[in-house]
Amino acid sequence: MGSVKVYGPAMSTAVSRVMACLLEKEMPFQLLPIHLPKAQHKSPDFLKLQPFGQVPAFQDGDGTTLFESRAICRYICDKFAGQGNRSLLGREGGGAADRARVDQWVEAEAHSFNPPSSALVFQLVFAPSMRLKQDPAAIRENEAKLRKVLGVYERRLAESRFLAGDEFSLADLCHLPNAHYIVSATDKAELLTSRKNVARWWEEISARPSWKKVLDMRGAPPA
Amino acid sequence: MGSVKVYGPAMSTAVSRVMACLLEKEMPFQLLPIHLPKAQHKSPDFLKLQPFGQVPAFQDGDGTTLFESRAICRYICDKFAGQGNRSLLGREGGGAADRARVDQWVEAEAHSFNPPSSALVFQLVFAPSMRLKQDPAAIRENEAKLRKVLGVYERRLAESRFLAGDEFSLADLCHLPNAHYIVSATDKAELLTSRKNVARWWEEISARPSWKKVLDMRGAPPA
Repeated sequence: MGSVKVYGPAMSTAVSRVMACLLEKEMPFQLLPIHLPKAQHKSPDFLKLQPFGQVPAFQDGDGTTLFESRAICRYICDKFAGQGNRSLLGREGGGAADRARVDQWVEAEAHSFNPPSSALVFQLVFAPSMRLKQDPAAIRENEAKLRKVLGVYERRLAESRFLAGDEFSLADLCHLPNAHYIVSATDKAELLTSRKNVARWWEEISARPSWKKVLDMRGAPPA
Repeated sequence: MGSVKVYGPAMSTAVSRVMACLLEKEMPFQLLPIHLPKAQHKSPDFLKLQPFGQVPAFQDGDGTTLFESRAICRYICDKFAGQGNRSLLGREGGGAADRARVDQWVEAEAHSFNPPSSALVFQLVFAPSMRLKQDPAAIRENEAKLRKVLGVYERRLAESRFLAGDEFSLADLCHLPNAHYIVSATDKAELLTSRKNVARWWEEISARPSWKKVLDMRGAPPA
């Protein structure tokens, strides 16, 4: 059996999501860099792994290849169910409803939190580093959207330690990459840190050893 | 045990997705209308079921409540594994890799197909019916994005009968609501019908009795 491979740059939020999941599951893996400025993600070889030309792509030790970060994470949790963190997809023995409670918050991340936070991270972090012009209207619009979403999170986290319940789960993990950039690399940290329960939650999930290791692997100092 | 309840208007693409899944699983359910123009989805009672104020919300016979259409669909497949269509989340006995192959295409629908197709459906179908002004730039931009996505689908469907493999799955099902509006209610049907393999796939998945029943329940003639 070969080793587990993740293709893509560690700076990518979707790549980091998969890395954090593998680290929670204590699953060793190789990170194979894909150079986006050289358009390696559009090369014929890469498109065999990821037909949309996006990162990450994933290859299991048995040759299974997958794309889409959240699908890869669910697969890692299912395939390596018996090792590392065993409650990422709901408490052991929690059944379909427990898994679904995690899943609905993974979907909330994907459809409510991710679009405005990704747009902000692009505008405020990546655009300047790529010498692209920022779009002030997009910044305003996405900040307002994210503020509204985090208002819902604040109410949820007033009644629950983590998004899906009492345990850290894949739902919390999926937020780490974009939330990290917003808190540590933009002037919008208050979006998360000014809300009592969101701030408590962010402090707890960002302190996980798995996430600190992802930041180490990026070569950046841990937040 | 009470009955399964879906809250939301049948015209909503996300509500239709859940209805199609329940019908594939031969699971009886009640559809409880939520009147969007009256802002019933923003009422305190509805926000207890769906904190973001979006449709659908879902309630199981045992009182489990869930939101997010794709999470609800996965739950229905897990909870009612033994009845109706048993391969929506991968072939029986197919294991984690089989489920993940379905899941990656559910995610491709959510992140690649859904954003431009939802935007087109809003601009071309819902905006006129709500007497809102159409945005020609948004129509052009999203048509171009969807065309590119469907180019990837055409290559995938040249080598595979359905998106995830030889069997109809949740991945195909998730596309039905937006694809139906584009083919039957806009002048952009050719996006799907002009591509040999996408057209073959669309013809096969849209002919499923479950989907025809969703259209019947909407009170619209089947496409």
